[in-house]
Amino acid sequence: MCELSLNDYINEQCQLVDAALDSLLPAEDESPETIHQAMRYSIFAGGKRMRPVLCLAAAEACDGLAVNALVPACAVEMMHTYSLIHDDLPAMDNDDLRRGKPTSHKVYGEGIAILAGDALLTEAFAVIAQVDDTERYTVRDYVKELAATGGSKMLIGGQVLDLEGEKKGLTAPDIRAVYEGKTAALLTASLRLGAMSANATEAQLEAITEFGYNLGLAFQIIDDILDLTASTEELGKTAGKDLDAQKSTYPALVGIEQARIEAKLRTQAAMDALQAFTPEKRARLEEIADYLLNRKY
Amino acid sequence: MCELSLNDYINEQCQLVDAALDSLLPAEDESPETIHQAMRYSIFAGGKRMRPVLCLAAAEACDGLAVNALVPACAVEMMHTYSLIHDDLPAMDNDDLRRGKPTSHKVYGEGIAILAGDALLTEAFAVIAQVDDTERYTVRDYVKELAATGGSKMLIGGQVLDLEGEKKGLTAPDIRAVYEGKTAALLTASLRLGAMSANATEAQLEAITEFGYNLGLAFQIIDDILDLTASTEELGKTAGKDLDAQKSTYPALVGIEQARIEAKLRTQAAMDALQAFTPEKRARLEEIADYLLNRKY
Repeated sequence: MCELSLNDYINEQCQLVDAALDSLLPAEDESPETIHQAMRYSIFAGGKRMRPVLCLAAAEACDGLAVNALVPACAVEMMHTYSLIHDDLPAMDNDDLRRGKPTSHKVYGEGIAILAGDALLTEAFAVIAQVDDTERYTVRDYVKELAATGGSKMLIGGQVLDLEGEKKGLTAPDIRAVYEGKTAALLTASLRLGAMSANATEAQLEAITEFGYNLGLAFQIIDDILDLTASTEELGKTAGKDLDAQKSTYPALVGIEQARIEAKLRTQAAMDALQAFTPEKRARLEEIADYLLNRKY
Repeated sequence: MCELSLNDYINEQCQLVDAALDSLLPAEDESPETIHQAMRYSIFAGGKRMRPVLCLAAAEACDGLAVNALVPACAVEMMHTYSLIHDDLPAMDNDDLRRGKPTSHKVYGEGIAILAGDALLTEAFAVIAQVDDTERYTVRDYVKELAATGGSKMLIGGQVLDLEGEKKGLTAPDIRAVYEGKTAALLTASLRLGAMSANATEAQLEAITEFGYNLGLAFQIIDDILDLTASTEELGKTAGKDLDAQKSTYPALVGIEQARIEAKLRTQAAMDALQAFTPEKRARLEEIADYLLNRKY
């Protein structure tokens, strides 16, 4: 369906995103150097850039240009990276390894890691403030979207529920609330902000939102399955952490096979939401959804 | 000069600000409850509301209404409070007491304290996105101002320099850089955002900026003097912390008397910057500057 293979497409988009991130972040030799080094260390630690790629692909699905979605794509990646730095801290998930590299606090110490997360979160808003208005959406809409997504009822709320759920034995609805907050929210916002940069219609934005919500749930279920089944080398982060932390996850609750079925159903629901787009326009997002469902790490 | 005494003025403005903060923050019983309780605990822990009061006073100095400055006033207070929660963490200044109460991590644990700081920072942007445009300033200007102020070269940068300066013996210019980042930046932005809400002219905004910069330096010098001379009860936070942490401060470097002279000179420079305003319009800001210089805790 698509001219480029998915692999080549992702590589091309990642290059665009990396160049934009590099130009938007303060240089390593700007004072105070430590904080700028720490910000860049985590941003360029080999992340998959899933959220920025979804942002650009959503813009294209809505007849826009990927290049016009680069500003929100970088903002969501900064927000995502801040949340990883803070989640990895000893007071939270206490993880030493992320994307195959030592986590920020292992390299820079806890104080600088906290501040590097703070700085990336703040920079996400400095970046989103640079977005161009379109006919339907102004910078105010983008800032509101990013702030609501990152806030205490969504991204941070999910992490709170996750933290509080350890050793507690959550129910399926509780686990879904964690997934919605810590994963689906920012993933959906990535897609929505990309669609907004393409001046998406209300119907397009609704379809993209529905796609993102279901994709986000599927993605987190697969993530939790892989935590149980893949090796630390494959994941680039410590495998089996959830079991050790006695975290309630969907596969731990219902078993790996049932969880995989749920992930498939969610992926199908995501695909169904895209029917509002022509086959040509939705092809890339479908490919990405399929790829995320079947990934091995 | 002013109809109300400074004390009554501050009390009135604080009531306005507290009511606005209460209406802007998620309720304590909204899920997840812990994070909303933690956000409110620190916001309503008895802070002096110096930044919001300066924000409102700057609006009035520029012929605007205090009520129109409430949105940015609340945003800066949220940003200030987040920075205190994170600064107090064990990995940073490791302080158990703030405004006479146990710090956030002593009450809620480190994980929730980090997240409460993150949430207040994010909420500051959700709030600033609600600001009304004026003829000269749009929501984009406000978001940019707040993000730059809170970023790695200003508020966070100051904290990094402060953290790295411990046990190092900073020079006077180094210390000034710390003061500029961790204090003068947000104090200046508070005034500027208030002035912007009053549709300040470029000349007014410049005068307000110069006032804020000098007031900020004077304020931090006095703060560091009080850390050496006042009691824990008077301060509401642990006195003598800077000496214990071997922090380089201006009074530690040049002595308390010389530091007080510098604070007076900075306060005078701040007052001088206000000559662009009529005596009536600048009276309240002058009163506040004088009050901050002569405070005993």
